[in-house]
Amino acid sequence: MNFINSRGFASDNNAGVHPRIMKALTDVNSGHCIAYGDDVYTEAAKEQFAKLFGDCDVFFVFNGTGANVLSLQAMTQPFNAVICSKTAHIHVDECGAPERFTGCKLLYNNTPDGKLKTLDIAGHLHGIGFEHHAQPRVVSITQTTEMGTVYTVDEINEIANYAHDNGLLLHVDGARIANAAVSLDVSLKDMITNTGVDVLSFGGTKNGMMFGEAVVILNKSLSNNFKYIRKQGMQLASKMRYISAQFNEYFNDGLWLENARHSNRMAQFLYNEVKELNGVMITQKVAANAVFAIIPSHVIEKLQREFFFYVWDDLSSEVRWVCSWDTTEDDIKRFVDTLKTLL
Amino acid sequence: MNFINSRGFASDNNAGVHPRIMKALTDVNSGHCIAYGDDVYTEAAKEQFAKLFGDCDVFFVFNGTGANVLSLQAMTQPFNAVICSKTAHIHVDECGAPERFTGCKLLYNNTPDGKLKTLDIAGHLHGIGFEHHAQPRVVSITQTTEMGTVYTVDEINEIANYAHDNGLLLHVDGARIANAAVSLDVSLKDMITNTGVDVLSFGGTKNGMMFGEAVVILNKSLSNNFKYIRKQGMQLASKMRYISAQFNEYFNDGLWLENARHSNRMAQFLYNEVKELNGVMITQKVAANAVFAIIPSHVIEKLQREFFFYVWDDLSSEVRWVCSWDTTEDDIKRFVDTLKTLL
Amino acid sequence: MNFINSRGFASDNNAGVHPRIMKALTDVNSGHCIAYGDDVYTEAAKEQFAKLFGDCDVFFVFNGTGANVLSLQAMTQPFNAVICSKTAHIHVDECGAPERFTGCKLLYNNTPDGKLKTLDIAGHLHGIGFEHHAQPRVVSITQTTEMGTVYTVDEINEIANYAHDNGLLLHVDGARIANAAVSLDVSLKDMITNTGVDVLSFGGTKNGMMFGEAVVILNKSLSNNFKYIRKQGMQLASKMRYISAQFNEYFNDGLWLENARHSNRMAQFLYNEVKELNGVMITQKVAANAVFAIIPSHVIEKLQREFFFYVWDDLSSEVRWVCSWDTTEDDIKRFVDTLKTLL
Amino acid sequence: MNFINSRGFASDNNAGVHPRIMKALTDVNSGHCIAYGDDVYTEAAKEQFAKLFGDCDVFFVFNGTGANVLSLQAMTQPFNAVICSKTAHIHVDECGAPERFTGCKLLYNNTPDGKLKTLDIAGHLHGIGFEHHAQPRVVSITQTTEMGTVYTVDEINEIANYAHDNGLLLHVDGARIANAAVSLDVSLKDMITNTGVDVLSFGGTKNGMMFGEAVVILNKSLSNNFKYIRKQGMQLASKMRYISAQFNEYFNDGLWLENARHSNRMAQFLYNEVKELNGVMITQKVAANAVFAIIPSHVIEKLQREFFFYVWDDLSSEVRWVCSWDTTEDDIKRFVDTLKTLL
Repeated sequence: MNFINSRGFASDNNAGVHPRIMKALTDVNSGHCIAYGDDVYTEAAKEQFAKLFGDCDVFFVFNGTGANVLSLQAMTQPFNAVICSKTAHIHVDECGAPERFTGCKLLYNNTPDGKLKTLDIAGHLHGIGFEHHAQPRVVSITQTTEMGTVYTVDEINEIANYAHDNGLLLHVDGARIANAAVSLDVSLKDMITNTGVDVLSFGGTKNGMMFGEAVVILNKSLSNNFKYIRKQGMQLASKMRYISAQFNEYFNDGLWLENARHSNRMAQFLYNEVKELNGVMITQKVAANAVFAIIPSHVIEKLQREFFFYVWDDLSSEVRWVCSWDTTEDDIKRFVDTLKTLL
Repeated sequence: MNFINSRGFASDNNAGVHPRIMKALTDVNSGHCIAYGDDVYTEAAKEQFAKLFGDCDVFFVFNGTGANVLSLQAMTQPFNAVICSKTAHIHVDECGAPERFTGCKLLYNNTPDGKLKTLDIAGHLHGIGFEHHAQPRVVSITQTTEMGTVYTVDEINEIANYAHDNGLLLHVDGARIANAAVSLDVSLKDMITNTGVDVLSFGGTKNGMMFGEAVVILNKSLSNNFKYIRKQGMQLASKMRYISAQFNEYFNDGLWLENARHSNRMAQFLYNEVKELNGVMITQKVAANAVFAIIPSHVIEKLQREFFFYVWDDLSSEVRWVCSWDTTEDDIKRFVDTLKTLL
Repeated sequence: MNFINSRGFASDNNAGVHPRIMKALTDVNSGHCIAYGDDVYTEAAKEQFAKLFGDCDVFFVFNGTGANVLSLQAMTQPFNAVICSKTAHIHVDECGAPERFTGCKLLYNNTPDGKLKTLDIAGHLHGIGFEHHAQPRVVSITQTTEMGTVYTVDEINEIANYAHDNGLLLHVDGARIANAAVSLDVSLKDMITNTGVDVLSFGGTKNGMMFGEAVVILNKSLSNNFKYIRKQGMQLASKMRYISAQFNEYFNDGLWLENARHSNRMAQFLYNEVKELNGVMITQKVAANAVFAIIPSHVIEKLQREFFFYVWDDLSSEVRWVCSWDTTEDDIKRFVDTLKTLL
Repeated sequence: MNFINSRGFASDNNAGVHPRIMKALTDVNSGHCIAYGDDVYTEAAKEQFAKLFGDCDVFFVFNGTGANVLSLQAMTQPFNAVICSKTAHIHVDECGAPERFTGCKLLYNNTPDGKLKTLDIAGHLHGIGFEHHAQPRVVSITQTTEMGTVYTVDEINEIANYAHDNGLLLHVDGARIANAAVSLDVSLKDMITNTGVDVLSFGGTKNGMMFGEAVVILNKSLSNNFKYIRKQGMQLASKMRYISAQFNEYFNDGLWLENARHSNRMAQFLYNEVKELNGVMITQKVAANAVFAIIPSHVIEKLQREFFFYVWDDLSSEVRWVCSWDTTEDDIKRFVDTLKTLL
């Protein structure tokens, strides 16, 4: 395995922990704290969320699948359906956890750019009140999408209004929400709270944290039972201070934005370096930290020998290149040089 | 909150992370690793488990509830029943997660010392093959028990044999397995593998780790689908190296035993200091790192103002005092002095 | 198999369908009806329930397990617990269906006469609001109990009040509710509605019907989603008229009371015939249609060769004899004669 | 409600019970039978299935949703996925019961004629062995399809082979299997057993029975735990003889084929009467007992005032007309006359 410790473009999950986050962990590592979140660090972290989002309830969990599944459980009854994109992480990458734990049906839509439209939602709004049909209750979108694209504030707002007008709630899978915030250059309050999002899965792991995500409940009528949902959902950390400390530093002095700005910038840099190469066809707008491209299939494997990345679609030889908080311009130059040689 | 950072006797979950573990986290924090466990640190950690247990399959998860629930899922069908003690963590402290996720019924027994007997199990072995009854399939015991007592190797072996003779499997909740190993002064191979345990939840968080537990499958016929069970069970860490690195250091040079030996010794010290006090009645054998005692109810609250600990049973004014890897003799002396004054 | 069509004392489930019920099925068997309950027979049957219970919502299901499980689902969230007797059908005889489908924990109590007491409930009312504990939400009692005993109206009322005072709901498994109504000589309104029962599983199959039970929701705030719960719970009959027609006839002219009165009377007759026999020890008050007795173990098998019945407890050689709507005095005389001979 | 007892074209579920079936119920209504299926009628009914299918295991359940969901549960683990058509009853008409009870993901395909192709299946066969993806395990097809079309024996065989070659199992929802058997003029053995179907939901209710369906397990390795799955799945009838008696008569003297032949013939008659009308466009091949057609939207409501039927697609004003075992030529003539007048 020649990839040990070498930076590639496979996933922002492959990157390590930002040194400031690591230091924050060490800094809280003295003496005893009441377990399960009744500690000062957790209280401080929740206040940070309140500053960013306004009035909300926040619950820390272990990982993104946990955040998504428990968010959906808080929003649904088992006879409900969740409307999402066909490329949604909740549909494709969570091994059926949403169905298994919420009992709900997932209704998915073809969305070439990963972005759900109100028309997609409309197509599922029949059989309402008809007991034979799973009742649509939640729209779930991903921001930044799995295709590296970004919903505008207006688009989120339109979906939220459409959802609410039709008795639905809006969930946002924000595993890469920081990259979207930087891309749109808007506050979380403007992007999430003011657009009418009901529940947000707020991710940090892909942007420099070690572990730990947050379920941010903007629609506080959905919070009542969440503490039980989290505990029964196996997502309550005993030594909670070590999640909270990460979030405290993550928000301190804009580290979260700095990391995301960097990875987005690296993706733009990569995009600019390859977009006009013969044999490279960019397939998605590069709005955040990922570049999707079709390259000759014979090049893929050779390139993968030097840099780890994933094939997105075998048939079309589409690949995904993801930049991380620690990607360097030099990484990209070497990568592009290799690619050029292979092409 | 005057407990910030002050060491108490509430729970070994309230203690921090051992400095060597913290350093180990920093040491692996460079460059990229393939996410989700396909990395060299995880491979090394698995090898450590193999050294301690012999041939086994190991899967890392986030927390103890996750380890227990997923272990049980790997061992059962939804129409099965799990036999346990009435004080078992899976029955009392997991908010019904085992029932919720496995679909199984929990059959619990009164066990004054926290230890299940074969006679307890025998009482549930009726209606076998009768479709109206949930079919017993797993016996789950806790080592060290929730009452601070410890099963001997012979006792585990007897239960395992009895279980197997009756078509059942044996699960051990080892949230405090290190304390038991030290208490019995036996190897994990002798205590777990050779006694016939099928699946072990191996805990580290209560003994100096930050997060992360391991499901150790000794009966490898139960491993086939575990990777899916873990992912669907929301317990697959993306940046797995930070769990693996902890285990690597935990086992390095016997740190796990050293920590457990220390907390057990502190519990003995505490026990010796209080056992003959007027007004203190020890209620359980002190075999590991916890002391259970009945003290005058009017003393409890005053003592809690100085040292955080939990009341175990309000009616009888029984309390639980837990020692941790970082408890000092001085902590105990001050605690006992305060107690004496109050008595 | 020499039991074909011969009446025994095994279970009121072994009896056939009352001829009037059978005729009612034939009577509605012409032409088309809208499926799934939107038909005049179903409307009429619901009105019958309203007459007996007052304002309520009624949903027909297939069987008793379905009625119980869906009732509990309507009353709970997955992190709740249900408090019941150790002999409760929901605990012993439904193969874990309540846990599997509601996700809830069952907390069961030793109740020698099958009747839960408020003290039993009290023992579970700790850890309220504590996320580590499954939160008690429902008390479930069985009327007539599985031990052939009957709660008085006052006892039900006391349990209901106690439950409500503690934030719990009361479910009654009324698989043999008719036998209790006859035994107490009270109306369903007095026994169920006015005592404060929230949801009742109303059984008919054991008392002369072919199939079909009713979930009677007195606390109508629990009804909102029941139609989805029933459909998703696989308990919505397509040709609903054939359940409704049975209930219509069941309530017509007091057939339900007549059948229950008969089986209760037969049990009293049996009781009187055996209670003073040497070697027979009656173990439960005979309040409805079942007699529990300890008889010499060597007699059991021989008696079973002539009359089918079940051993209740192998260890104590306790047996259960159940009378049905079609049991005759002559059946009992022959049974008692055989028993006498064997004794 | 002017539809009381008047025959319409809404659904074969709206029809009553065939008089011979009704008589069979009366015929077994004497004396006691052991409940839950241990009776001679059930044994006889199982033998009938064995004659039709060859070696198989048969379990009776209450309804079609129960048959489908329990079949799927017997074939899957919760981390599996089930591949089906977008119009499949399990996807559209069971309120999410399959997801809720199996925990599995449903992967659905656009199939204009209701028939799944191997290419549809192929599109889901990626991510095999990859723990992030729900693992495809079952292909479920409906015979007769929800669109009134019928798979040929070769088509079923091709799907079965493709499924097995790829480690999948084949489930057939046979709610209208009799109509397909008549349409293809083949034996069940040739259509189901010899093609390689693993599990069949065998329906009778839509073809003249009152209630009760059968899960026919051809691949007997899937039968082991089914009795527990059925009981825990709330689908075990206590007075089982009344399901068995129906099946016994259903198969006696070919009643099942006679009924299906009749309803198919009526659909052909209807088809022939309307196919050339101006304003009527037939949208599906009429292979069994349903006719799908687009008619002018202004006609629909008026026609519904006289004959009950369902609109299949509001947007295209497509309607579904279903014939039943009791539909008469005269019914159709009156219907067509009314339609002609309205057109």
